[in-house]
Amino acid sequence: MTVAPVRPQSAGSTSGREHVTPSTMKAAVFTEPGRIVIEEKPVPKVGPRDALMRVTTTTICGTDVHILKGEYPVARGLTVGHEPVGVIEQLGEAVTGYVVGQRVLSGAITPCGQCWSCLGGSSSQCGGKAMGGWRLGNTIDGCQAGYVLIPDAMANLAPIPDHLTDEQVLMCPDIMSTGFGGAESGRVRIGDTVAVFAQGPIGLCAMIGARLAGATRIFVVDGSAARLATSLRFGADVAINFKDREPVQAILDETSGRGVDVAIEALGTPETFESCLRVIRPGGVLSSLGVYSGKLTLPLDAFAAGLGDHTIVTSLCPGGKERMRRLMNVVASGRVDLRPMVTHRFSLDQIEQAYELFANQRDGVLKVAIQPLHAS
Amino acid sequence: MTVAPVRPQSAGSTSGREHVTPSTMKAAVFTEPGRIVIEEKPVPKVGPRDALMRVTTTTICGTDVHILKGEYPVARGLTVGHEPVGVIEQLGEAVTGYVVGQRVLSGAITPCGQCWSCLGGSSSQCGGKAMGGWRLGNTIDGCQAGYVLIPDAMANLAPIPDHLTDEQVLMCPDIMSTGFGGAESGRVRIGDTVAVFAQGPIGLCAMIGARLAGATRIFVVDGSAARLATSLRFGADVAINFKDREPVQAILDETSGRGVDVAIEALGTPETFESCLRVIRPGGVLSSLGVYSGKLTLPLDAFAAGLGDHTIVTSLCPGGKERMRRLMNVVASGRVDLRPMVTHRFSLDQIEQAYELFANQRDGVLKVAIQPLHAS
Amino acid sequence: MTVAPVRPQSAGSTSGREHVTPSTMKAAVFTEPGRIVIEEKPVPKVGPRDALMRVTTTTICGTDVHILKGEYPVARGLTVGHEPVGVIEQLGEAVTGYVVGQRVLSGAITPCGQCWSCLGGSSSQCGGKAMGGWRLGNTIDGCQAGYVLIPDAMANLAPIPDHLTDEQVLMCPDIMSTGFGGAESGRVRIGDTVAVFAQGPIGLCAMIGARLAGATRIFVVDGSAARLATSLRFGADVAINFKDREPVQAILDETSGRGVDVAIEALGTPETFESCLRVIRPGGVLSSLGVYSGKLTLPLDAFAAGLGDHTIVTSLCPGGKERMRRLMNVVASGRVDLRPMVTHRFSLDQIEQAYELFANQRDGVLKVAIQPLHAS
Amino acid sequence: MTVAPVRPQSAGSTSGREHVTPSTMKAAVFTEPGRIVIEEKPVPKVGPRDALMRVTTTTICGTDVHILKGEYPVARGLTVGHEPVGVIEQLGEAVTGYVVGQRVLSGAITPCGQCWSCLGGSSSQCGGKAMGGWRLGNTIDGCQAGYVLIPDAMANLAPIPDHLTDEQVLMCPDIMSTGFGGAESGRVRIGDTVAVFAQGPIGLCAMIGARLAGATRIFVVDGSAARLATSLRFGADVAINFKDREPVQAILDETSGRGVDVAIEALGTPETFESCLRVIRPGGVLSSLGVYSGKLTLPLDAFAAGLGDHTIVTSLCPGGKERMRRLMNVVASGRVDLRPMVTHRFSLDQIEQAYELFANQRDGVLKVAIQPLHAS
Repeated sequence: MTVAPVRPQSAGSTSGREHVTPSTMKAAVFTEPGRIVIEEKPVPKVGPRDALMRVTTTTICGTDVHILKGEYPVARGLTVGHEPVGVIEQLGEAVTGYVVGQRVLSGAITPCGQCWSCLGGSSSQCGGKAMGGWRLGNTIDGCQAGYVLIPDAMANLAPIPDHLTDEQVLMCPDIMSTGFGGAESGRVRIGDTVAVFAQGPIGLCAMIGARLAGATRIFVVDGSAARLATSLRFGADVAINFKDREPVQAILDETSGRGVDVAIEALGTPETFESCLRVIRPGGVLSSLGVYSGKLTLPLDAFAAGLGDHTIVTSLCPGGKERMRRLMNVVASGRVDLRPMVTHRFSLDQIEQAYELFANQRDGVLKVAIQPLHAS
Repeated sequence: MTVAPVRPQSAGSTSGREHVTPSTMKAAVFTEPGRIVIEEKPVPKVGPRDALMRVTTTTICGTDVHILKGEYPVARGLTVGHEPVGVIEQLGEAVTGYVVGQRVLSGAITPCGQCWSCLGGSSSQCGGKAMGGWRLGNTIDGCQAGYVLIPDAMANLAPIPDHLTDEQVLMCPDIMSTGFGGAESGRVRIGDTVAVFAQGPIGLCAMIGARLAGATRIFVVDGSAARLATSLRFGADVAINFKDREPVQAILDETSGRGVDVAIEALGTPETFESCLRVIRPGGVLSSLGVYSGKLTLPLDAFAAGLGDHTIVTSLCPGGKERMRRLMNVVASGRVDLRPMVTHRFSLDQIEQAYELFANQRDGVLKVAIQPLHAS
Repeated sequence: MTVAPVRPQSAGSTSGREHVTPSTMKAAVFTEPGRIVIEEKPVPKVGPRDALMRVTTTTICGTDVHILKGEYPVARGLTVGHEPVGVIEQLGEAVTGYVVGQRVLSGAITPCGQCWSCLGGSSSQCGGKAMGGWRLGNTIDGCQAGYVLIPDAMANLAPIPDHLTDEQVLMCPDIMSTGFGGAESGRVRIGDTVAVFAQGPIGLCAMIGARLAGATRIFVVDGSAARLATSLRFGADVAINFKDREPVQAILDETSGRGVDVAIEALGTPETFESCLRVIRPGGVLSSLGVYSGKLTLPLDAFAAGLGDHTIVTSLCPGGKERMRRLMNVVASGRVDLRPMVTHRFSLDQIEQAYELFANQRDGVLKVAIQPLHAS
Repeated sequence: MTVAPVRPQSAGSTSGREHVTPSTMKAAVFTEPGRIVIEEKPVPKVGPRDALMRVTTTTICGTDVHILKGEYPVARGLTVGHEPVGVIEQLGEAVTGYVVGQRVLSGAITPCGQCWSCLGGSSSQCGGKAMGGWRLGNTIDGCQAGYVLIPDAMANLAPIPDHLTDEQVLMCPDIMSTGFGGAESGRVRIGDTVAVFAQGPIGLCAMIGARLAGATRIFVVDGSAARLATSLRFGADVAINFKDREPVQAILDETSGRGVDVAIEALGTPETFESCLRVIRPGGVLSSLGVYSGKLTLPLDAFAAGLGDHTIVTSLCPGGKERMRRLMNVVASGRVDLRPMVTHRFSLDQIEQAYELFANQRDGVLKVAIQPLHAS
């Protein structure tokens, strides 16, 4: 694998530059199932509540791969990507409290803060729609591009502390927020035993989140020895390769039949969902993060067996600048260092290679950093 | 329907009597699928933590009908019934704080209060087992009998206020606790819109619980016009007969497409579970009370559609004397009068008739009162 | 008392009119301690995120009386009032989703929805400041005027259902939200026993909120026989006039020494705060709504006695359009009818009389309706 | 300081011995303010729900020092001590699920699990009394003795895993449970900023608990440089010696004026309580652990300033065997090693010396281990 010699973006490197916004930019566009390609597109126009962000670093999510494969439907011609780190290029006239040139990021979910759902505490369902808060790279153009429009900028732009680099905070917009959210929704407490099914990037972050929230025994399940090894390095207690041991029985054995307090599903298959149901103790919580695509069936005897005994919480990726601030607090504290998760770096021009590598989980890839090249 | 001339038990009627505990009693015993019969059995012996209750009034639950039909397995020879109202006949030597002759009831669930689960806040899962708190008429002899042993008596015997009759409190042990619990687990708040699927006795109590907890618009769904009419009398706002209107669409139409804040499933079929998933708003809660017997499948597109948007809570029937005390508070306040739910009365000897009537939902039956006849 | 012959505003009466916004308006202005007077002021200019509301009905709050007396400091020249009901006159250019002429109201608290606090779930502390969400009639001009600027209009304008009149919803912006919030913050549950200290308009709403949330025994304490009688009419169970009985002992006696599950303080004196501490059961909640003006001392033996046993929650008035929508749901349901709380009506020109009446609690006043006169 | 050559009790050392319970034992008895002395007392008789524990290790709590000084009243002649680690010597006849000879500990709080309060989730208020759950060394004889009666043994005896020594679990009964409970009651979340006032053993545990629960920036305040240094070693982020810097201003400065999300009070003075009020952000939580002895006054302007902005939670020490099990999970995981907190060891005979050292915080003492000498 030849990785392009892109330099890691250093902290604070953008101060003092004069910005002349170009009229066009490169963007990764979904054209048809199986194809995401780089196209030249106009730089978006800023509306009153928006901000234009010059993207300095972004990444690819498993959900983007679902889009690529046509498993999750988006409009043809849409720019994909929902994990933007960059610099404020322009501000809408109703936006106050920011300055052009500020280093900022936005969550993958961009709540407006002002609709019935947001004000009611369900900002992931912004606009009263399931997943309504997910706009970037879903219902509006995303950030695998030179520039991206951030809607409702005041609710979403989170300044990046000077001493943190782009790559240190690159996991905040989605996988840290989603993964930690899985532990939080699961109400992990000090002394809890937790199982996390699947150790892709989100499952790994769920494990880290469970650890941060006080879990003292964490089982991780995956079929990749490499991913399990990574998970142990990040603090998991017991790794179970489902190719070697049946994980439900293994976990019940290791807990003297008691099961776990919280099980986190981080893949999105009926098998892992069912396994979660089967390993939680009576009264435990199943926190579901996976995207269940298509039409599935679930044998409910697992559910029936647990009558009166389960809470099932599904959560999306909490967004908004306050959430991002808290996650950057975690990064700044040094309690967790997710930089080792960035295993490969590409320029935006090379993004098709990046998708190919990431979609096939080749070469030990966990997450890739994508850097648009801007004329300086 | 000829109803036996059993007199309603008046409040305080048992004080001052001398009790000579007989050695045998009548009991309703499960003998094989399809058969629950009255047998003569020894009166149970009291262990140190137990109490012996002389049953004055009890009732039949939908779950007892599942047992009768062989759909929920119990040991042959078990005395059934889990809704005991009566008088303390004997107290185990470790039991303090009660006197023989006190009018008391016990919840259907009899938590010990002292195991890992109970102390951890999951008393329905007493002993760390799913439904482990349900012992009466399930894992030990129940209360459709002249006498019943109440295990861990100190945690379970709740004195009945003098001014309340047996029938006023007869719904407390199970259906009030279960139904209200459905509203509480669903976190119903002031101003919420709620849908309750199925208006049998438990669904009706769930509706009443939702109303007590502040719901200001409640949809009830059933196929029985009589049950829906009853529900409207108890305070439901909109009744939907699924024979006349498709309830999911009806509820979405009535809420301008928004859906309900909380949906309560009170039947135990995949269809009603799925309908609940389809009517809750993004971010809403599905509170599941039904017993899903057998092996079921659920089309998960309803679930998938709501990715990140649902909380599903299953709850059993909260037990313990504090729960019972609170429910009797509700009865005593007069906010709710559930006496009209007792539509028929039988002596224990007539219980086979009572099962026949109740199982077939004949003659407008909601709940029956069963009274063992004690020599006085 | 001569009440001006102001006609109650009927529902839907404003549709179809052509609005020509005048350049000046009448406004009730704080000029110095002891003086709130009607002045002619320019109609405010709309910024991008604002809306201009033509006020059709508003009211006076106890807090306004604190302002009048100089006990709560605001800038001289400020227009007071924070309970606006009216019609959209103009919309800022960044505001979408509304039309001019719509009947709307706004909460007393006007959260922006987009700052760290709002996004973190503390919208009453908008901007990260204690009471920061309270802007109208506090840090910006209020609504006892012909027109009022509603900041962050998208988060705050709540459409009024056609079938509800101004007076039906006039309590929503503040006292319903504050009072119900006291019950909600106190986590009142089905079957709880509650005490509410002081039965002014907010205490009365707290009692109603506790009842809506499931309390089945509610003690109300006040020194006014008339207010206690009103409270009983609205559903309180036991009224205690502190001139006749010492309320702490009375409540302990009536609860067999157990105390109440939740005590709500709705006056703002150290005496009532201490009484609340003394009547809550071990493990209970004190929900504090009162404004404690000035420097106070509290004998902490009441607190010390309850070591490890208390939760004290102070809450302001939850705002935002979603909160307002839910409260209007309650009104629309007919579960509660607060119209009898409007005991007197005045035109805006007569507001000095209204303050005089209200501040001195004369003539059985509970709340007044104030109607600006607009040329039609 | 001459420390007696007591050997640390090794894990599992008691198995296989034959126990002949003696009729008398040594016990540390409160005789009058200023005097706790060793006396010879009868070994207690076991009631049906009790267990007799042979104490192998115990410790002294700050509350014991309050008792010694006469600041917290107990009966003269009472055996003090509430942190028992030992071996089951005898079991009451109603107690099942244990065997004589098992290594066990009990929490300082010994809930019955079966009263209204325990079943209602307030086990610290067992029996419906403030602090009612605290019985050992308060209302019944405690564990600074050769033997101690554990009431309601089934709810309280928690088996100690074989691989953990007495000293590893010695902090579980009180200071871990109390301190961690302070963080839990304060609802510390991932990414929170926390301040802990006072870094005695309980404050230190509160800091550790906050860290375990996800706090990523923790301020600790004390006047002892040694204690602050210890706290930094255990993971605190910023130590503030109030002799050097005014802590309220220091914390506000360090947080850019924002304040902390959660402040934990771990001393019990009005000054620290007030400081907590002054450093929490609007909407933050004050978690109070200190014992406020005597009659205190609190300037409420700090409270008034935060109108609508505070939650104050006071919590005692959660007890019961499930709580103890969870805490031993934490110890077993190795996430935290509290053994360094045991700075000194004494035999029970030397306990007066131990009190003298501990009460005067001499010689860098944090916690002492006390070991009764049993004939073998």
